[in-house]
Amino acid sequence: MQTTDFKSVIDKYSIIFFDAFGVLKNYEGLVPGIERTFAYLEEQGKEYYIVTNDASRSPKQLAASYHKKGLMSVTQDRIISSGMLAKEYLDLKVHHGMVAYLGTSDSAHYIQSSGLHTIPIDDVNDSNIDDINALVFLDDEGFDWFSGLNKCVNLLRHRNIPAIVANTDWAYPVSMNDVSVAIGGLAYMIEHILGKRFIKFGKPDSQMFMFAYDQIRERRTIDKKDILMVGDTLQTDILGGNKFGLDTVLVLSGNTQGTDALLRINASGIVPTYICESAVV
Amino acid sequence: MQTTDFKSVIDKYSIIFFDAFGVLKNYEGLVPGIERTFAYLEEQGKEYYIVTNDASRSPKQLAASYHKKGLMSVTQDRIISSGMLAKEYLDLKVHHGMVAYLGTSDSAHYIQSSGLHTIPIDDVNDSNIDDINALVFLDDEGFDWFSGLNKCVNLLRHRNIPAIVANTDWAYPVSMNDVSVAIGGLAYMIEHILGKRFIKFGKPDSQMFMFAYDQIRERRTIDKKDILMVGDTLQTDILGGNKFGLDTVLVLSGNTQGTDALLRINASGIVPTYICESAVV
Amino acid sequence: MQTTDFKSVIDKYSIIFFDAFGVLKNYEGLVPGIERTFAYLEEQGKEYYIVTNDASRSPKQLAASYHKKGLMSVTQDRIISSGMLAKEYLDLKVHHGMVAYLGTSDSAHYIQSSGLHTIPIDDVNDSNIDDINALVFLDDEGFDWFSGLNKCVNLLRHRNIPAIVANTDWAYPVSMNDVSVAIGGLAYMIEHILGKRFIKFGKPDSQMFMFAYDQIRERRTIDKKDILMVGDTLQTDILGGNKFGLDTVLVLSGNTQGTDALLRINASGIVPTYICESAVV
Amino acid sequence: MQTTDFKSVIDKYSIIFFDAFGVLKNYEGLVPGIERTFAYLEEQGKEYYIVTNDASRSPKQLAASYHKKGLMSVTQDRIISSGMLAKEYLDLKVHHGMVAYLGTSDSAHYIQSSGLHTIPIDDVNDSNIDDINALVFLDDEGFDWFSGLNKCVNLLRHRNIPAIVANTDWAYPVSMNDVSVAIGGLAYMIEHILGKRFIKFGKPDSQMFMFAYDQIRERRTIDKKDILMVGDTLQTDILGGNKFGLDTVLVLSGNTQGTDALLRINASGIVPTYICESAVV
Repeated sequence: MQTTDFKSVIDKYSIIFFDAFGVLKNYEGLVPGIERTFAYLEEQGKEYYIVTNDASRSPKQLAASYHKKGLMSVTQDRIISSGMLAKEYLDLKVHHGMVAYLGTSDSAHYIQSSGLHTIPIDDVNDSNIDDINALVFLDDEGFDWFSGLNKCVNLLRHRNIPAIVANTDWAYPVSMNDVSVAIGGLAYMIEHILGKRFIKFGKPDSQMFMFAYDQIRERRTIDKKDILMVGDTLQTDILGGNKFGLDTVLVLSGNTQGTDALLRINASGIVPTYICESAVV
Repeated sequence: MQTTDFKSVIDKYSIIFFDAFGVLKNYEGLVPGIERTFAYLEEQGKEYYIVTNDASRSPKQLAASYHKKGLMSVTQDRIISSGMLAKEYLDLKVHHGMVAYLGTSDSAHYIQSSGLHTIPIDDVNDSNIDDINALVFLDDEGFDWFSGLNKCVNLLRHRNIPAIVANTDWAYPVSMNDVSVAIGGLAYMIEHILGKRFIKFGKPDSQMFMFAYDQIRERRTIDKKDILMVGDTLQTDILGGNKFGLDTVLVLSGNTQGTDALLRINASGIVPTYICESAVV
Repeated sequence: MQTTDFKSVIDKYSIIFFDAFGVLKNYEGLVPGIERTFAYLEEQGKEYYIVTNDASRSPKQLAASYHKKGLMSVTQDRIISSGMLAKEYLDLKVHHGMVAYLGTSDSAHYIQSSGLHTIPIDDVNDSNIDDINALVFLDDEGFDWFSGLNKCVNLLRHRNIPAIVANTDWAYPVSMNDVSVAIGGLAYMIEHILGKRFIKFGKPDSQMFMFAYDQIRERRTIDKKDILMVGDTLQTDILGGNKFGLDTVLVLSGNTQGTDALLRINASGIVPTYICESAVV
Repeated sequence: MQTTDFKSVIDKYSIIFFDAFGVLKNYEGLVPGIERTFAYLEEQGKEYYIVTNDASRSPKQLAASYHKKGLMSVTQDRIISSGMLAKEYLDLKVHHGMVAYLGTSDSAHYIQSSGLHTIPIDDVNDSNIDDINALVFLDDEGFDWFSGLNKCVNLLRHRNIPAIVANTDWAYPVSMNDVSVAIGGLAYMIEHILGKRFIKFGKPDSQMFMFAYDQIRERRTIDKKDILMVGDTLQTDILGGNKFGLDTVLVLSGNTQGTDALLRINASGIVPTYICESAVV
């Protein structure tokens, strides 16, 4: 399979959206050389955003994690996470009572920041269940799966409240060979057991791209033709970018390996505009 | 079940989004009295949009169909259809070659308006198949289902091109008692036979609401809290409106009848902000 | 809704198949009066079987649990469980190596009884993974969900071995108001995360009914018209019984309550031959 | 990928089950040399059955079609079709009224043979709809798709009767390069539009294998270990054979080509006992 040089691709666009995992970083840390890409973008005066299905931490904490790894260019204002959309939803639609959550206290801290009262799923009981007006799936860590998931099923059977999935990914890599079930996978199971429809945020949904697009438009006029979406996953990054009307790059540094990229493209019908080895210039 | 007076609801909002079928009109014509609602909205200086899963005609033709029925308030610029999103996608992403379509020539005419070359599915053959760079599902009429759907399956097996579904509804009412399979139902079948992912436009997807939202923002500052979505279908209008962060009204004049509205709300977990008998003031 | 007298129904058949949970017992113990039904069946010389989606224990242990509750008529040879089908599959298809399992040691004990080597999911590691030739989902208890389910996902990513679901139920009642996620729900999630096809045993699958049917035919000639299936769940008992060609009774003592039985029958299209209050004569 | 010699495989078994399309025949006629396989089986005193998802004709007509092509060994009593299961269901469960059908008159003729009254979907109307007590999907030919499928949707909305799918395949090959949507694909669409559960017959369902198994047991004692299932499709032949406890052969003469057989086996988790080039000895 022939790939295109990443630098020659980004030269055609003025704004670049990047997926995070498998593009900028992996289970070992930063993708080697990725800081050169950001240096180049800044040198060329190109704008960039990280568009990520991550609700485990606030944009501020996410940015700090890049800084710690040595990538200073990824600042808080450059990050669009599915957690931000979940927070916007809760701010707009839940006016009183409490929001129960599955996840770590870090993930809940961000949701709380505009004044919402949150409660970990483990603390839901008969005395407070009637005050709970939403349930949000934030992170697969921070709670016991057996008790937490069963509580979650029964909460949604007893109270007809919205269930918000802040990260729709089903699994994520934890090492070279292994993955872990993500909160989106757990939410998917519970949605099917209950037969209810949850409210889901994350790529490939257009709302993620629109959120980034809006941030840019507040400052200047743009055209979708000037934006490039770079990702490693056909079903989220490429499908979502394509649908939003953007040109797309599939990079082979993450979920989709060179050996089966064409096979997967043909099987799925999800066709990126370009295929590049990685997002390193 | 207790319903709320529609006028008292809309008094709280400055912008109203309406679904079309089951809200403004039904298989017999306009919902009786609906023109009073629009007179009231204009009198009160409220803004309104029709947000509809319809790709069978251009917004201009859709508006003309309301005028013919006597509802002059629904003008072309007030209509946001899933066909408009499909057209925007094709304009952005298909730069050459032809777009094959399933639908009437009316539905194709609109897609063509910005210069795209279209070809009805029945005319696809060995001599032109290599020039076809997208397939779009527009309308369930205008082609023979047996030959058209089989051609469509084989076109997508031979050419790895995007398939766009411009109306995701599975069925629509054609009389008091009967429905007809919609183009979204046919597309759903073909997507599953092929195991490919199609690009779908229509409620509950946020892109529909964003499109309307954007049109308003071009002229003035708005807040999602000022917008109300009015619809008769939980799975499209209410789920989509809720997810976009809007308050929602379920009206009982269409798909969801009074007798089973609460049952369906409980079973689906899709909860409207209000339930009203109809959208008539 | 009009129900039929259960005794008048069973008088028409010579063999009765019963679901267990929601028919003979519930979370509190035996359904009051159910022993009268078995006394009547024996008095009338009718044959009966318990056909149950249960892989948590051996038929012997299941029978003992009925005896402990005071129902002596349910003997080991009258029980057909989905665990028996899983065991038959493993005996026929896994000739060497080990079978990893999710469940309690009780559930594994039964699978082991014909000489198969089993290993709890928690004990799977790099040193033994290559000896594992099948994975079986037996029970939702007996393992830590977080570590066990993640191990299970990675085992099936590294080794292309059959995954057997010995109980396809998604949830089961644990009290008047609450349910618990069943092993079938967990298996469903993992199947979708991996995109693989698991081998599933349990109603509504015909193999369950065939297994009971076969046991009877070994002793005498029968006709499907003489068999009645009694259950409380449309999607498993009634759908499966109907498909196997049996007449079916929906009882209102378990999953399907009187108030919404007709609604569910209409919504699902799964129509029992009779509806009875309970299986008590 | 290494394949095994087909003759060396069948030498280990005394009964062979064959899929039809892609194994014995293809769109051009018989698989060249397949008659040698049957000559060998007869010479060796091995028993064989054709286990096929086909409801378009009676076993008698199916056998005649093999004879016409020159394969005399495939006699009526050797054919187990999904149509036979649908017929058995209707005979057991529909005692009066009419059975509406989608398919050719040939397909209906077989269903009628035990006295059932059938009516083509096109002839269903207000005057007879109340006499229709089942709907059966037999064949994708013999009716107009637009009017027939819409009638079918409305029939099942107005009358809560069982819908039987006599062939669950979604598509079938019609030439070297092209496929056609099968009746199972059309039924799948309608089932999802209605949200109802249909009764489906065909591989991978165990009932197909059980039907053949039973025919043999009427004459002699057998063991599942002596039976081999030979097919070209992982999702039906191999999954179904495996689940029933049989050893299985994937042949590369049909749906699964040599180039991607291993990929598909790994992706699906459906593992045949053997892989052979074809079923020709």
